[in-house]
Amino acid sequence: MKHEIIIDLLGSDMGPQEMLEGARLVLEEFPDVCVALAGPRALIEGAGLPEGRYRVLEADKTVTNLDNPIEAFYSKEPVSVFKALEEAGKCDDVIGVISAGNTGALFAGAIRFLLADKTVRPCIAAILPNSQGGFTCLVDTGASIDCGPAQLVDFAHRGSDLMRKLYKLESPRVGLLSNGAEPTKGNKLVKETHALLKVEEGINFVGNIEGNKTLSGLCDVLVCEGFAGNQVLKNSEGMAVNLITEIIKYGKTHQQPAAKEIAGYLMSRFDFASLGAGIMLGTKKLVMKNRGSCSRVAVRNAAQILKNIADNKTIYESIH
Amino acid sequence: MKHEIIIDLLGSDMGPQEMLEGARLVLEEFPDVCVALAGPRALIEGAGLPEGRYRVLEADKTVTNLDNPIEAFYSKEPVSVFKALEEAGKCDDVIGVISAGNTGALFAGAIRFLLADKTVRPCIAAILPNSQGGFTCLVDTGASIDCGPAQLVDFAHRGSDLMRKLYKLESPRVGLLSNGAEPTKGNKLVKETHALLKVEEGINFVGNIEGNKTLSGLCDVLVCEGFAGNQVLKNSEGMAVNLITEIIKYGKTHQQPAAKEIAGYLMSRFDFASLGAGIMLGTKKLVMKNRGSCSRVAVRNAAQILKNIADNKTIYESIH
Repeated sequence: MKHEIIIDLLGSDMGPQEMLEGARLVLEEFPDVCVALAGPRALIEGAGLPEGRYRVLEADKTVTNLDNPIEAFYSKEPVSVFKALEEAGKCDDVIGVISAGNTGALFAGAIRFLLADKTVRPCIAAILPNSQGGFTCLVDTGASIDCGPAQLVDFAHRGSDLMRKLYKLESPRVGLLSNGAEPTKGNKLVKETHALLKVEEGINFVGNIEGNKTLSGLCDVLVCEGFAGNQVLKNSEGMAVNLITEIIKYGKTHQQPAAKEIAGYLMSRFDFASLGAGIMLGTKKLVMKNRGSCSRVAVRNAAQILKNIADNKTIYESIH
Repeated sequence: MKHEIIIDLLGSDMGPQEMLEGARLVLEEFPDVCVALAGPRALIEGAGLPEGRYRVLEADKTVTNLDNPIEAFYSKEPVSVFKALEEAGKCDDVIGVISAGNTGALFAGAIRFLLADKTVRPCIAAILPNSQGGFTCLVDTGASIDCGPAQLVDFAHRGSDLMRKLYKLESPRVGLLSNGAEPTKGNKLVKETHALLKVEEGINFVGNIEGNKTLSGLCDVLVCEGFAGNQVLKNSEGMAVNLITEIIKYGKTHQQPAAKEIAGYLMSRFDFASLGAGIMLGTKKLVMKNRGSCSRVAVRNAAQILKNIADNKTIYESIH
């Protein structure tokens, strides 16, 4: 079966050209994959991509972080992210969508065109490197804000499913983000969710996880409400950037040439920019939500994850 | 005026001996300070502390993380943390209390014995190193969970007051933790608080701060609800530990001796264990909440902050 990946060229902070270069990398590295590109026709057709391996989903408009995603929905001009998601819902060959645009718009579009089950809201997971050398699936990372305990239980199931598929884990360990490891710790939502997860069938619940242990490898799936999950994701990234910057500064002021080598190593090990693409769960087709600042390599890595899931391979080899 | 600091010896993960050694450091370094020690009489009297500079608040019982703090309140035996707080409320000479015990018990005791204003709940702030070389006051760090927008506005005032006192900042910049920098981003609580802070008198509100910018020095006071603040605090710490551990591992596997030097530098720069004591705000006397795992040096540093506030000095000199 032909595999097609849809890439939304608009909405990225780096501009459509960087997304287009990402598409070029995908075509170069995966000879059995085709792409459908949502964006301005002239730009796409002028890029010199290999004939017969791409098609154009013409759209000149995007949704910025200052726009209201719902209003954009009723725009007369075609919006690239909606065009991409609508097409994904229609074509059997499509294995997934990649976008670096506004999360709210992606979310609204996914609900409209790709919802697997009308009773549940989608969520966005991130696969993050942990200090055991493995990966932890953080869900939700900021798409589902102000949700209730039943939704968090749902996140636990979807995160477990993803980790089963991606890493062939038989029974992924599920942790619940809290402000203390003890079962009595937590806000109202966490306490209620804890009680539900403890008795939920099909979930290997290992208890509460404290904020300083999120990436310690104590669990394979870390469940949290979107606002808190967003803090974990962005804080971990911000702190990694802070420390790496300090190392580089130290190297300069102390004439320590090894600082650059060590900073480089950490950047490859904790490369949130290329690893941190979000994976939307609960949709009929996989949707990869890349950061607004994502590079061409991040587009390629997102395609690799889509392809591995479609091919039913683990992603250990490709990311390690 | 005589300055006395009360130290709760029990409840720390490191045992009462480490807290006692902290008290010894305080007495050695600050000749004009006396201490009152809450704990077992035999232990305190056998420690060989300088005569006339300490007194005993006898108490053999503590509150563990598994106890219910409210039940402990009605215990027949004296509990060290309650004894410490009660004494602080009674004696004019006391400039503050230091404890590394259960936060819930400390909170309950502070409400009972030290509340400045019956209409507000206390909160716990942390002073964290930011990447501009300065400090950011994070408030609340986990004491006030599930609170409303009016409480967050209150945290903004108390954090601003503290930063005015500690660093002589005229108009501390107040940021609001959110899942995006735009004013439209946030959960319900953050959106409501944003609207209030924008028009609040006496608050220099600089807008929403994203999770990857918490310690970037964009604000002097970072306001958040306790659950989210706890994530920021512990995540930053956990991530710093992860990266430092990676550097040490790298040094060993790659025979790079400079790795140890760089790890040591980062440990001094991002030393959460000694810097990260929480400061309870909204009480008649200052209460320093140290980590359960706090070292004797952390006790000394907490005393330094109490002393500087009492002496009306900034803490720049002492922490830098």
